Amino acid sequence: MVLNSNRVEHFSGGHDTAAITISGDAMPPLETHEVCLPPPRTTLQKLRQRLSEIFFPDDPLHRFKNQTLFRKLLVGLQFFFPIFQWATNYNFKLLRSDVISGLTIASLAIPQGISYAKLANLPPIVGLYSSFVPPLIYSVLGSSRHLAVGPVSIASLVMGTMLSETVSYTEEPILYLQLAFTATFFAGLFQASLGFLRLGFVIDFLSKATLLGFMAGAAVIVSLQQLKGLLGIVHFTSKMQLIPVLSSVFHQRNEWSWQTIIMGVSFLVFLLTTRQISMRRPKLFWISAASPLASVILSTILVVCLKSKVHGIKTIGHLPKGLNPPSSNMLYLHGPYLALAIRTGIVTGILSLTEGIAVGRTFAALKNYQVDGNKEMMAIGLMNMAGSCSSCYVTTGSFSRSAVNYNAGAQTVVSNIIMATAVLVTLLFLMPLFYYTPNLILAAIIITAVIGLIDYQAAIRLWKVDKLDFLACISSFLGVLFVSVPLGLAIAVGVSIFKVLLHVTRPNTAVLGNIPGTQIYQNLSRYKEAVRVPSFFILAVESPIYFANSTYLQERILRWIREEEEWIESNKDSNMKCVILDMTAVTAIDTSGIDTISELRKMLEKRSLKLVLVNPVGSVMEKLHQSNILESFGLEGLYLTVGEAVADISSSWKAHS
Amino acid sequence: MVLNSNRVEHFSGGHDTAAITISGDAMPPLETHEVCLPPPRTTLQKLRQRLSEIFFPDDPLHRFKNQTLFRKLLVGLQFFFPIFQWATNYNFKLLRSDVISGLTIASLAIPQGISYAKLANLPPIVGLYSSFVPPLIYSVLGSSRHLAVGPVSIASLVMGTMLSETVSYTEEPILYLQLAFTATFFAGLFQASLGFLRLGFVIDFLSKATLLGFMAGAAVIVSLQQLKGLLGIVHFTSKMQLIPVLSSVFHQRNEWSWQTIIMGVSFLVFLLTTRQISMRRPKLFWISAASPLASVILSTILVVCLKSKVHGIKTIGHLPKGLNPPSSNMLYLHGPYLALAIRTGIVTGILSLTEGIAVGRTFAALKNYQVDGNKEMMAIGLMNMAGSCSSCYVTTGSFSRSAVNYNAGAQTVVSNIIMATAVLVTLLFLMPLFYYTPNLILAAIIITAVIGLIDYQAAIRLWKVDKLDFLACISSFLGVLFVSVPLGLAIAVGVSIFKVLLHVTRPNTAVLGNIPGTQIYQNLSRYKEAVRVPSFFILAVESPIYFANSTYLQERILRWIREEEEWIESNKDSNMKCVILDMTAVTAIDTSGIDTISELRKMLEKRSLKLVLVNPVGSVMEKLHQSNILESFGLEGLYLTVGEAVADISSSWKAHS
Repeated sequence: MVLNSNRVEHFSGGHDTAAITISGDAMPPLETHEVCLPPPRTTLQKLRQRLSEIFFPDDPLHRFKNQTLFRKLLVGLQFFFPIFQWATNYNFKLLRSDVISGLTIASLAIPQGISYAKLANLPPIVGLYSSFVPPLIYSVLGSSRHLAVGPVSIASLVMGTMLSETVSYTEEPILYLQLAFTATFFAGLFQASLGFLRLGFVIDFLSKATLLGFMAGAAVIVSLQQLKGLLGIVHFTSKMQLIPVLSSVFHQRNEWSWQTIIMGVSFLVFLLTTRQISMRRPKLFWISAASPLASVILSTILVVCLKSKVHGIKTIGHLPKGLNPPSSNMLYLHGPYLALAIRTGIVTGILSLTEGIAVGRTFAALKNYQVDGNKEMMAIGLMNMAGSCSSCYVTTGSFSRSAVNYNAGAQTVVSNIIMATAVLVTLLFLMPLFYYTPNLILAAIIITAVIGLIDYQAAIRLWKVDKLDFLACISSFLGVLFVSVPLGLAIAVGVSIFKVLLHVTRPNTAVLGNIPGTQIYQNLSRYKEAVRVPSFFILAVESPIYFANSTYLQERILRWIREEEEWIESNKDSNMKCVILDMTAVTAIDTSGIDTISELRKMLEKRSLKLVLVNPVGSVMEKLHQSNILESFGLEGLYLTVGEAVADISSSWKAHS
Repeated sequence: MVLNSNRVEHFSGGHDTAAITISGDAMPPLETHEVCLPPPRTTLQKLRQRLSEIFFPDDPLHRFKNQTLFRKLLVGLQFFFPIFQWATNYNFKLLRSDVISGLTIASLAIPQGISYAKLANLPPIVGLYSSFVPPLIYSVLGSSRHLAVGPVSIASLVMGTMLSETVSYTEEPILYLQLAFTATFFAGLFQASLGFLRLGFVIDFLSKATLLGFMAGAAVIVSLQQLKGLLGIVHFTSKMQLIPVLSSVFHQRNEWSWQTIIMGVSFLVFLLTTRQISMRRPKLFWISAASPLASVILSTILVVCLKSKVHGIKTIGHLPKGLNPPSSNMLYLHGPYLALAIRTGIVTGILSLTEGIAVGRTFAALKNYQVDGNKEMMAIGLMNMAGSCSSCYVTTGSFSRSAVNYNAGAQTVVSNIIMATAVLVTLLFLMPLFYYTPNLILAAIIITAVIGLIDYQAAIRLWKVDKLDFLACISSFLGVLFVSVPLGLAIAVGVSIFKVLLHVTRPNTAVLGNIPGTQIYQNLSRYKEAVRVPSFFILAVESPIYFANSTYLQERILRWIREEEEWIESNKDSNMKCVILDMTAVTAIDTSGIDTISELRKMLEKRSLKLVLVNPVGSVMEKLHQSNILESFGLEGLYLTVGEAVADISSSWKAHS
């Protein structure tokens, strides 16, 4: 199988044929190389490798290699409690940065905690409890240095929606609280199990495009719901779809209170302005970070001063002083609402996990360190399980507060400890101060926070780059707005998976031509200098060959050949004698695919066309070999490159003619 | 970007590094070729092309190109009624073959029709009705020449199961019949719509592996159920799972009738023997084709002769004479059972469609003609819709009868017309003859027919070639045996889709090395002669880069680089300076994938490593361009082949040093 001499001659012109001539000039000999099988492995070895790629792609044990026993113990301790990684090097300079950033996020966390708890239809104090215990636990277990832990808007919203559709907080407050803590427990259990079972890749199925649409939809709903507080409406729907919320707003016009509206809108404008300033100048991040607390203080003072003159502004009212009461006795583990609690837990768990992991990875990438997804899941999960036993609801790393934390110069998770301490002081001593804080300010804070989730520029970018990603985005947006939160999410995941299947079901095939003067074969429709090789028809299949596309591919390849034959006939070109399938991009094959290849070979043989396979990848080669169809291809049916196939087959024709 | 001279020198040794030296010898100049964008197309053009690939991959209108108006009309007529394609060339010789094969399949169709109707818990006469009208309609519309149309075991079984779980034929015969005809109507409507909307690819999701397991499971259940007839049991479960069926058999031992058992087993042995003979010698196909009718005649005569002496052998009893009565007034289009009828229709519709299409394709491939899947679906669908209005239940192309038809020398669908005529004669004149036909013979015929569906050798082949295909097969087998028919099918489809997603979620990556003396770069672990290229790290990604794998790929690539760096350190090799990603097999990318590439570039840049992309396919190139990340790669970040990238970057390093 050695060709002693050949040359690929240059030819000008675009789609011309007749480009390759084999002549006897001086050129280094071109050998044809055999296509190798991958090294033989037993089923067990294959299974082990496959499982290790699925569950341990990051090779978490590589740290333990070639270490002494003591080092191994230490590394293990650091592995499970990342606090030991940095605690030994911790110094006063780091502490100073952490104290500053910790106090900054505390000033944001306290008003946000109260607001988000209201979003989940929970008493405001639960929001503060949730900003105390979980950050402390995360600081021991978590591996991100910049994550600011606490309640977040999306998870609060989803929990509030899902629970309120069945149980009303105003009617059955104890049951509602029980279900909230139980959902938190299951959210934590689900998160920790995903991490422990190393199934972290599950959250990858929520693509960025899906989340973009989902968050924008949720932001719109949440903002509209806040009109309740901002307009002073008393009777409001507990539903979460666009239409009932809007009709609630406009049907209760008699409840609108002008004092509330004036004050609410002024503070909203103030908060949005400070947000804009900080976005334009990242150095001034503290302006938007401090403004919620400033608004809370200012509005409370205003209400206290005006309380004899102005009526109709609703305030938070009495909040109990003291630390988180234990709530493990409130877990609702059997009864008619258990399924609801589990469902709510899983949906909020997966959403908060996605946010926490994404935020952690974002800031880790900025500072060039790695966050271990599965470990983070365990940390977030354990922190929620602990939270559910100490009157906390679902928490995770918040994007807005983590950004403030990062900008304020946080160095380690100690900033979370500082924040928790500030919340502790608030819980112990400052609760009475919130008595006159108006509800409208909480609504304004929530609107300011969630409005940043509407990223229409990113949606435009999606439209420009990938229409199907845009479809996933818009369908999750509309699903959340008009159907429901979990269903909207399910629709979006469905669209994403459909996209993958569509690509598999209708893969691309391309006719290749030779780029004159080279051994490069490329897509004829894309490379204008590429030319057809007479007597050959070279086709690249750009996808695995699976049950889902084998019928299509067989028909499509036959259609390509039919069209090529028609073209040859009308152009009086030399007859097609050989069909070359470039399998470089056929990254996998199954039994249906193998049958297709084998049938195709038989059908082409009946038309006296030769079928040649080029460069099957390892796993494909292995399966072709195991199914014994390689033998039917013979020595001249399998080549390593298209160039070698063309040269070798041409020369064998010459030898026979 | 033109390299004036370079040479890739040979180096012996397996995994050695240091293989490439750039020297100034005489070699033809190697140009680097620009990576082209695909020709620009508007969104509308792209959408149109995409839709035409999804819905019209076979380009059904190509027949109409460049034809006169008259020819176009004729071709159109032939397109919708394939009968016009062959009717003009039909001659006496063809007719003779068709008459022989038609009578042969009639002798099989009559006993099978009666038996399969019993399998669906329908009166036996419905099976004969279903062998009369649908074949006539198919002969006008269908494009397969060898398909023998009529009731089939799987669809009968599934319809019987699904309906009997809610409605009992013995208690509410009219309602049961109504539901059966309605389910048939919806099956036809569903099939015709799939064809009309060109959604035929839906049935591709039932992979061969899945069907193999499903049919084997169904065959086991059906065979065990036939023990009712074969043992003469009166009280039998209507459930379809293994356990209730087995317990029915053994708990009703007092009902076993020895006369039935002796006669049944003898005929079963006779039928199985003739089947074996025909399988060993395909020329003797007529032995197994004629044996069911022979058994029916023989057993009926036996019962007539012995009826005064032997009791306990149950017979078919009275069957009404006459043609199919109209049943369009029996369609059940509103009421509590409508959902059941629709569900049953869709499941039986999809199963019978799969069988019909697969059988049609099999025999078309043998005779080297094409069957148009979407058109076949319309034909089968319309024939079932018409059937539902003329007292027929679900029919399709049967594998066993089509094989007999093919072996008996059928040339066109006229054999179906002959068969229908034979059934017509039976319906009009011969019905009283079946009065004494024993039920046990029907059970024996069903067992003989379905036992061929258990193809354990194919399952062994699956295990050898593709473990995940085997898993899909075994899970549909067990699902059908222990859970239920539709759920077993759903599980199997789930496994198949999971397999596709698994491949997408955890794609393969391979380190490439140069095969000395060539421009070929191949997998180092597979090609022992390939050698590492110093200062370069060349990685091939073998999958689209999607949301579902972008996180994994990023981590995996970083791990590859970490391991390579550790290897370099321990081997005191020259430092890694450039990472080349071979994108040949990256057949698609989405926005998450683009972000991954861009983040990877930034992360590598921080470690002073250069990232280079090689040979992105058209659609990937387009998206990289639209998202503006190509610019950040610059001129020296994108090459057409790995060889060009290595040569050009090495020479630029030389120039700078």
